Amino acid sequence: MLPELSIEQFSLVSNFLSFAVATLAASSLFFFIGPGVNKRYRIAVVVSGLVCFIATYHYLRIYDSFAAAYALERTGDAARYIASGKPFNDFYRYADWFITVPLLMVELVAVLALKRSESRTLLTKLVIATALMIALGYPGEVSTDAGTRWIFWTLSMVPFLYTLYVLFIELGKALERQPEAVRGLISTARVVIVITWFFYPIAFAIKTLTGLTAEGEVAIQIGYSIADVTAKAGYGLVIYLIARRKSELEDEVSGSSLPDAALPA
Amino acid sequence: MLPELSIEQFSLVSNFLSFAVATLAASSLFFFIGPGVNKRYRIAVVVSGLVCFIATYHYLRIYDSFAAAYALERTGDAARYIASGKPFNDFYRYADWFITVPLLMVELVAVLALKRSESRTLLTKLVIATALMIALGYPGEVSTDAGTRWIFWTLSMVPFLYTLYVLFIELGKALERQPEAVRGLISTARVVIVITWFFYPIAFAIKTLTGLTAEGEVAIQIGYSIADVTAKAGYGLVIYLIARRKSELEDEVSGSSLPDAALPA
Repeated sequence: MLPELSIEQFSLVSNFLSFAVATLAASSLFFFIGPGVNKRYRIAVVVSGLVCFIATYHYLRIYDSFAAAYALERTGDAARYIASGKPFNDFYRYADWFITVPLLMVELVAVLALKRSESRTLLTKLVIATALMIALGYPGEVSTDAGTRWIFWTLSMVPFLYTLYVLFIELGKALERQPEAVRGLISTARVVIVITWFFYPIAFAIKTLTGLTAEGEVAIQIGYSIADVTAKAGYGLVIYLIARRKSELEDEVSGSSLPDAALPA
Repeated sequence: MLPELSIEQFSLVSNFLSFAVATLAASSLFFFIGPGVNKRYRIAVVVSGLVCFIATYHYLRIYDSFAAAYALERTGDAARYIASGKPFNDFYRYADWFITVPLLMVELVAVLALKRSESRTLLTKLVIATALMIALGYPGEVSTDAGTRWIFWTLSMVPFLYTLYVLFIELGKALERQPEAVRGLISTARVVIVITWFFYPIAFAIKTLTGLTAEGEVAIQIGYSIADVTAKAGYGLVIYLIARRKSELEDEVSGSSLPDAALPA
């Protein structure tokens, strides 16, 4: 059952969900337009746009579901939000992650523009591992039994750790052949993944250990919103910067870039 | 009449319908942008985008219709979803298939880029057969009489099998003239068609044989969602990969592609 929320707590969650909608929608449009990105890296940036678009849709659904799950109750001067009886469908998050998390891997591999066979091997591993990670988390999340929750949490951590292994060990070799100018950005992309992704199993574990208090629900909803915006829009921005920097390098080589000095004043 | 559903069953169907909306909408955008596809194959990928766009619209309608057809009923601590009295309009699916299934045939023939006369002959056969297949299924689906349902099921199977004959026998000859590099993908596209399309007559037959139980309705709605996403977005992705691979082959011949070696390390 949903915990009671004060007006401030309810507003805070609503505002963060709405903030996520606005940020993800705008990021999505930016990536679709993708200014300054050459054809070769366009797909990586377009996939960033898709991820943000899909997340925008899910945040709109979550926002509506959260609003419908609560009813305002006034007693004299006091007012608070109590469960309306309609379930809060938080599982849109899993539907979202199931599609978007593998696509985050596609973005990264696409922007590296590796050899076809190398891309295919990496993508197969990363897409299967991340989809499995989300699929194994879902049965745990829908369960109210602590034992079941821990079993699926543990199972889900296996492909999670494997994903980190592929990203940091196997991908490492491919990175040495990337242009010097983008290596720092690629490291940043990986760091964004590690830092934001750790939030999800931690939130899951806290929920299992403490049950869902009002403070816990507020913290988890805000945390998810921040983690999703960072892992999708923020990470997408890093992918975009890599794509644009590589496009500039190509243009310098082919001489198609126009130096400022050549422009009429 | 609609069967009663538990909260979990109702949520599961809602989530799958919503998953279909998100996936189809994002796929539609991706195909409209169509990164890395040359002019010659653009129409095949744009038609994939149209198919996913039309299906997104219908899944939004089905999602709303499903939500309106059920009402949450609480008895003490227990809660379940019962029929609200509003009909669940599942026939949006037929409106959808009547437009999109012939367009799936257009995608395939367009991406092959055959001679004009050859394309026209194949398209005429495939578009008429698939439209007829859907049109003949509809009177069966709206009927509650098992006899009527079986008559139209059988009638609908005739153009279905004819479509498979054209795809696997007649189209086979045209495939031998396709570039080696895309033949595997074209086979995949045909396999996706066969596997996903068989779901529909099987679902129809099960519904006729068993009537509609709660488990049956949940399984059919989830099955339709997965089959539609695979037959439209998944199949569209295969068409896109064929189009991109062919574009790359063209670019290699014309020398407009930039080799990796041209980039500074």
